[in-house]
Amino acid sequence: MFEFMTIRELYEIVMSGSHVEQDSMEYVQLQGWVRTNRCSGKLGFIELNDGTYFRNAQLVYLQELKNFAEVEKYPTGAAITVTGKFVLTPQGKQPFEIQVTEASLEGDCDRDYPLQKKRHSFEYLREIAHLRPRANSFYAIFRLRSVLSMAIHEFFQDQGFVYVHTPIITGNDGEGAGEMFKATTRDDADYEQDFFGKEAFLTVTGQLHVEAFAMAFRDVYTFGPAFRAENSNTSRHASEFWMIEPEIAFADLEDDMNLIEDMVKYCIDYVLENAPEEMKFFNTMIDKSCIERITKVRNSDFKRMTYTEAIDLLLQADVKFDNKVEWGMDLNSEHERYICEKIVDGPVFLTDYPKEIKAFYMRVNDDGKTVAACDLLVPGVGELVGGSQREERYDVLEARMKDMGMTTDSLQWYMDLRRYGGCKHAGFGLGFDRLLMYLTGMQNIRDVEPFPRTPKNLLF
Amino acid sequence: MFEFMTIRELYEIVMSGSHVEQDSMEYVQLQGWVRTNRCSGKLGFIELNDGTYFRNAQLVYLQELKNFAEVEKYPTGAAITVTGKFVLTPQGKQPFEIQVTEASLEGDCDRDYPLQKKRHSFEYLREIAHLRPRANSFYAIFRLRSVLSMAIHEFFQDQGFVYVHTPIITGNDGEGAGEMFKATTRDDADYEQDFFGKEAFLTVTGQLHVEAFAMAFRDVYTFGPAFRAENSNTSRHASEFWMIEPEIAFADLEDDMNLIEDMVKYCIDYVLENAPEEMKFFNTMIDKSCIERITKVRNSDFKRMTYTEAIDLLLQADVKFDNKVEWGMDLNSEHERYICEKIVDGPVFLTDYPKEIKAFYMRVNDDGKTVAACDLLVPGVGELVGGSQREERYDVLEARMKDMGMTTDSLQWYMDLRRYGGCKHAGFGLGFDRLLMYLTGMQNIRDVEPFPRTPKNLLF
Repeated sequence: MFEFMTIRELYEIVMSGSHVEQDSMEYVQLQGWVRTNRCSGKLGFIELNDGTYFRNAQLVYLQELKNFAEVEKYPTGAAITVTGKFVLTPQGKQPFEIQVTEASLEGDCDRDYPLQKKRHSFEYLREIAHLRPRANSFYAIFRLRSVLSMAIHEFFQDQGFVYVHTPIITGNDGEGAGEMFKATTRDDADYEQDFFGKEAFLTVTGQLHVEAFAMAFRDVYTFGPAFRAENSNTSRHASEFWMIEPEIAFADLEDDMNLIEDMVKYCIDYVLENAPEEMKFFNTMIDKSCIERITKVRNSDFKRMTYTEAIDLLLQADVKFDNKVEWGMDLNSEHERYICEKIVDGPVFLTDYPKEIKAFYMRVNDDGKTVAACDLLVPGVGELVGGSQREERYDVLEARMKDMGMTTDSLQWYMDLRRYGGCKHAGFGLGFDRLLMYLTGMQNIRDVEPFPRTPKNLLF
Repeated sequence: MFEFMTIRELYEIVMSGSHVEQDSMEYVQLQGWVRTNRCSGKLGFIELNDGTYFRNAQLVYLQELKNFAEVEKYPTGAAITVTGKFVLTPQGKQPFEIQVTEASLEGDCDRDYPLQKKRHSFEYLREIAHLRPRANSFYAIFRLRSVLSMAIHEFFQDQGFVYVHTPIITGNDGEGAGEMFKATTRDDADYEQDFFGKEAFLTVTGQLHVEAFAMAFRDVYTFGPAFRAENSNTSRHASEFWMIEPEIAFADLEDDMNLIEDMVKYCIDYVLENAPEEMKFFNTMIDKSCIERITKVRNSDFKRMTYTEAIDLLLQADVKFDNKVEWGMDLNSEHERYICEKIVDGPVFLTDYPKEIKAFYMRVNDDGKTVAACDLLVPGVGELVGGSQREERYDVLEARMKDMGMTTDSLQWYMDLRRYGGCKHAGFGLGFDRLLMYLTGMQNIRDVEPFPRTPKNLLF
């Protein structure tokens, strides 16, 4: 009688040209949600989306339809099942339509449905996070989020990297990487009596743990949630976010930068190839330069420049920065953007930062002043990825930790990796949500996470 | 001069037969860790593993080697770089060897290295979780964990499922799904002053959140960490574990069971195909029936039987169970295993459980007494997957929640999904760690997680 099809399948048939003969028309059954329904008395049109594809299918129904009076009242948001003739419409705005022969209601939609046709602000849509995946921007971003996740896994797995689920709950207080959430079952802060018999935190990084796995599997990566209990309400910070942290053994900073460059380019190719409709949408509705911007990055050689060179260039710049430039400072966004937008005009790795402004595990360079770190800066956003070669020398690492006033007890296992066949190794951290923002032009991290968590904000 | 190669690449060359000509020998460079080093005075052998493959490469070195005296002292665990001739040894125990021409030490290994040749108990190895990935069983399990993760992603993505990162921190107290960890930045339990302005928990399930996405994308899945603060020290419970929770719209319990069956079979095929050396290891060293057992499941039709039928069969059984059988009870492991091992002799779905023993969101059957739930039981372990069709009728759901004494306030958004184009849908939950145990025969969940978290145990 008819074939059950998805809207994605119908578009694939049309785009592949395998259904060009008008007389090969057939009856199909679709199930999905009404995006719009307009009826002129004798003739009605429903834009149907079934969740499988960014674009809708157009359903056409006529007065002759048995339950026409019912169908013309199907509200926006309702779930329906329809059977109809699949007809190519090469002259029309959409490549095909479904001429409805049967329609039935699967789930009605109350008249107070918040996603009526009118446009809503992103701020408003955050308050209905359970419904917003149905709004175009979020329908695009959350499929892209899934596609980009797969890009990451394929990129690493194709090269033999081992995926490691580093722990979320950790006894390590993060060594100053930022404020942390505690995980507890008690109300009285008596941690000795607590679930783990000691204070427990939500991880800020899987790096230290994954280094242990790099010493067994050579090339490894994490991809999982991380947390920051920082009370900062910016458009780039969420309390919960997903991180990717690869770690490669027998590798130095140069190898690390090559890997970062390959990964970023792979991700750009992947989303353009696997989510073309969504990327077209972002390019039209969110950021008009989006595809051009990332394509340019795709085709660039990522430059490399030392921090010291960058400071010199900043000192020579005839621009007045808000923050005074001097060697030893942490670069601000204005400096980073000047370097990659004005000087390089493309992606650039800054390398070899002063050790005072970088983490304890980064390898100290021969100058004794800098560490083998790299930050990837990209036009438009500034820092996208941060990496480093790790300190593999036990005594240097120990001295560094002491210098920084760290207690070594809880990290003895980490230091011991250096005593047991520790070798040259490197790695980096990529904020997945920020990569997604970068690729799409979305401006607020709250709008790329399914249910964002930020200070004082824990709806749903 | 030489080519940098991995041990995996060398085995692939040998297995593909593309290097059968003795005169096509070439020089290769390898980097890895010494598993064993034995030297008889003039001739030495190093078993080298570089993390890319389960098997080692055999290195042969002769007295003629410039730094022979040094090389013969390379200890187990040391990281080294070697260059040598790649020679096929079809008569030997291993298919090739590397005749070393140069060797150098990258990272020494202290003499107190705990992973000496002797065999260690799994209990002992848990205390050195940072080193155990280098021990054979863990080297196999953690690569398999990565391979199985990819199997899950490929299975769902190939069918167009959208991957959703449901939140880890939640305001929802889980509605009785078990004890939960709190996420807090305070010591005084003053949650109004806390980071989110209210009590916050670590998620026990992403299902409720992912249902919202199924109503936009039709087919969706989660794959992420979940938590239970239960003070139970069993071999099958960890406080932190990874869960897979697919959700499918326009689908009923039958569709759900078909999806579960397909997924389990896909995973079995995938690990046998993509981790053959590791699976061979488990079959030899961990569970002698492992491959036969899962191959049998692979080739079975998964039976389906109602809970009520199962109770009848248990009542008729001439076996004395420790727990008395009666309709309405929750089945114990002894009952589940009797059904799938003695009665069915293969995987079986039990369906339509009494509503009193199942969760509030499961769809009430027409009999008013049972719900459209399914548990997949497999020989050897009992329950592997639990799923259900969800209650899509607002009034039925609301009545059920009231019956169970639940407050509906914090779940109004979830109930509202039923008012706004809610349709028939279903889903399931799979404990990833338990699937891994099932596929490998590993007996303790602590031995399949990189850094397991259990009561009073938060090392590393």
